[in-house]
Amino acid sequence: MQPWKTLRRETILNQPPWLVVEHHEVMLPDGRVIPDWPWVITPDYVNVVAETEQGTFLCFRQVKYGLAGTSLAVVGGYIAPGEEPLAAARRELLEETGFHAAAWIPLGCYRVDPNRGMAVGHLYLARGVHRTADPVADDLEEQELLTLTRAELESALDRGEFKVLAWASAVALALRYLSTTERR
Amino acid sequence: MQPWKTLRRETILNQPPWLVVEHHEVMLPDGRVIPDWPWVITPDYVNVVAETEQGTFLCFRQVKYGLAGTSLAVVGGYIAPGEEPLAAARRELLEETGFHAAAWIPLGCYRVDPNRGMAVGHLYLARGVHRTADPVADDLEEQELLTLTRAELESALDRGEFKVLAWASAVALALRYLSTTERR
Repeated sequence: MQPWKTLRRETILNQPPWLVVEHHEVMLPDGRVIPDWPWVITPDYVNVVAETEQGTFLCFRQVKYGLAGTSLAVVGGYIAPGEEPLAAARRELLEETGFHAAAWIPLGCYRVDPNRGMAVGHLYLARGVHRTADPVADDLEEQELLTLTRAELESALDRGEFKVLAWASAVALALRYLSTTERR
Repeated sequence: MQPWKTLRRETILNQPPWLVVEHHEVMLPDGRVIPDWPWVITPDYVNVVAETEQGTFLCFRQVKYGLAGTSLAVVGGYIAPGEEPLAAARRELLEETGFHAAAWIPLGCYRVDPNRGMAVGHLYLARGVHRTADPVADDLEEQELLTLTRAELESALDRGEFKVLAWASAVALALRYLSTTERR
């Protein structure tokens, strides 16, 4: 299987760091050319499922502009230019909750859109988290920090209370890691 | 917690059905106004984890423009205008594999981006799938249909072989559904 070739790229919308849109002229393996394939660039991000030393989970109840009503959310945010994903995960956990983790388990990094690009999301499970500072509220949205038991987290996932794909993914992959580890 | 208000919306890039970008003038609960909040509209989509009557799983090995190398993928595609998500899931399963499902398990619907909108992904587990027709290849990309055992599917997920967020999510949520159901 041959990859498509990028022949030319042109920026058609430029609002960094939030959104850049390009048109790519691409050539398919059979020689066909698509002159204006939309390519979307948004900032890469991290999401962190934070498990306390007591085996409970830190979550938020949030309003977000893209969601109806409130949603449960996990820790997360954009990766700064030049920042390593794990460093961003540590920073976001500390900023949003004031907590520090004893161990970091990577749950994978995933492209948001196979066709248009968009971001890469880096997902983590942070284990043994404990408070070392006060949180710094720098987000535009209101949010409430919650502590959920494992049973409450599982039930919230199954009821669709994590309304964003990356948040539900991070929770599902973290629970999978925990149950796989416990079975061993 | 109060939602943000949309005061005005302006289309700044119009390439339907693939990509529309708007600027929204939004007002925060504290009265602050953001004049040019980027809002991105891409087509809603379905992804389907297809489990055969024998308990194996239909997957693809694919090249996609937004991914380096090849990726494992699940059945999926865009929802047509006016189409119900489940109808799109049935259609994509039939078109891409020639298979029909005995039962459909919804795994949730999730907004891709909590800030910019983008698509909503509708995820399903199709159980008891069996061939009723030949697949119709209408995608631009080359792809190879594979049958994985449950152990191979689990291992591929854990190794990061599903490189797209929605595909990894659908597999993780389907495996969660199956193991929860089996424990009862």
